[in-house]
Amino acid sequence: MAYEECTLIGRNAIMEAFRSGRTIDKLFVLDGCQDGPVKSILRAARKQDTLIRFVSKEKLDSLSDREKHQGVVAVMAAFEYAEIDDLFAKAEEKGEDPFFILCDEIEDPHNLGAIIRTANLAGAHGVIIPKRRAVGLTGTVAKVSAGALNYTPVARVTNLGRTIDDLKKRGMWFVCGDMEGELMYRQNLTGPIGLVIGNEGSGVSRLVREKCDYLTAIPMKGNIDSLNASVAAGVLAFEIVRQRMQK
Amino acid sequence: MAYEECTLIGRNAIMEAFRSGRTIDKLFVLDGCQDGPVKSILRAARKQDTLIRFVSKEKLDSLSDREKHQGVVAVMAAFEYAEIDDLFAKAEEKGEDPFFILCDEIEDPHNLGAIIRTANLAGAHGVIIPKRRAVGLTGTVAKVSAGALNYTPVARVTNLGRTIDDLKKRGMWFVCGDMEGELMYRQNLTGPIGLVIGNEGSGVSRLVREKCDYLTAIPMKGNIDSLNASVAAGVLAFEIVRQRMQK
Repeated sequence: MAYEECTLIGRNAIMEAFRSGRTIDKLFVLDGCQDGPVKSILRAARKQDTLIRFVSKEKLDSLSDREKHQGVVAVMAAFEYAEIDDLFAKAEEKGEDPFFILCDEIEDPHNLGAIIRTANLAGAHGVIIPKRRAVGLTGTVAKVSAGALNYTPVARVTNLGRTIDDLKKRGMWFVCGDMEGELMYRQNLTGPIGLVIGNEGSGVSRLVREKCDYLTAIPMKGNIDSLNASVAAGVLAFEIVRQRMQK
Repeated sequence: MAYEECTLIGRNAIMEAFRSGRTIDKLFVLDGCQDGPVKSILRAARKQDTLIRFVSKEKLDSLSDREKHQGVVAVMAAFEYAEIDDLFAKAEEKGEDPFFILCDEIEDPHNLGAIIRTANLAGAHGVIIPKRRAVGLTGTVAKVSAGALNYTPVARVTNLGRTIDDLKKRGMWFVCGDMEGELMYRQNLTGPIGLVIGNEGSGVSRLVREKCDYLTAIPMKGNIDSLNASVAAGVLAFEIVRQRMQK
């Protein structure tokens, strides 16, 4: 893989990256910005011999592509995608049944970032995304993941349907969030499980849906169509957590 | 009722709006403009906790679409905030125990929009937000709510702590999402309930937290601090849904 750069935006994301031991190549700090959190970041950067540049607000705005940078932008090697085996290794290391979250064509980096954050906190062992028609690991995804990207492996696969077939052979089963499914509380969601989350607008694609063993539904009591994709992922992931805790 | 932002231009129109008790979200004032009428407008704006921005003539010209602005432009929601009684009416209409979601200083319009969307689908009867240090019903909030704003009433109150006191007198009790609380599965979350969601960075403020009857925790199994605010709201709201369905 060629060297690719990734821009990290915002204080929490940058501090988390230092904490997790990632190598930051360059740190851009708003000239004159001297408050506590920025000082902590600068200390961490000096400890790691990161190149530090004090720059103008305009420079930061352009580096961060107008995302809210809070006075700091970091540049580092792009996040490496994991292999599927890294996800299994994570489960084995913890002595747990594998629990992966598969994103079927999530397009919004805020949603992907929030899902990786949720995956980390729900104890999932990794996230799987497709190469096509989906957002990858951008700086915005890293920022919104609030540091989770440093701990939770993300694998990128060519064909999500084929990956599901492969994982089934390794003993996993798959459930996808779908309003037509059975109510999630009534389904057994324990065991080695892959949770499939669909696209923001169109849900889980037909081919991927047909590969799933079950459709599972969040109870819908309102007037509108569906939850935000990352909220739906959170509600479903924590139903899996609840059932695992009760076992 | 679609959301519309309404721009008010000129000193008289803006002063009249303040006098009539309308909520002005943002006030743009020409930087350096300090005469009597502008001072009166600023006083009214501060009394109402309107967000005030001092801007350049060019910015005002573009905001006012080149209308004669006399140094002041105000932006407000054509969308009306609901009253607390509207939320109770909604619960009564459905014959259900009241279920409100209270947002304590949510700043990101994407989070507020997603929370209103979640409130609608979890069958909550409304959302309560504070006037200060929080995002109001902006165009982005309306957009992200995916239409939920048209069904789920949103009330805006001066002091969230005082509102909690008032609602307690009406038989409600309050729970706030907090990592130090008891695990949500072990708590009884049925009955007339207000769920309090904290600020993205700092969580629920001390004063509001102290008013809550219980702290309730989502099980955290990962390496990082906390879920995204709207994901946490979703997970907690649907735990309330689960417990209500089991009653």
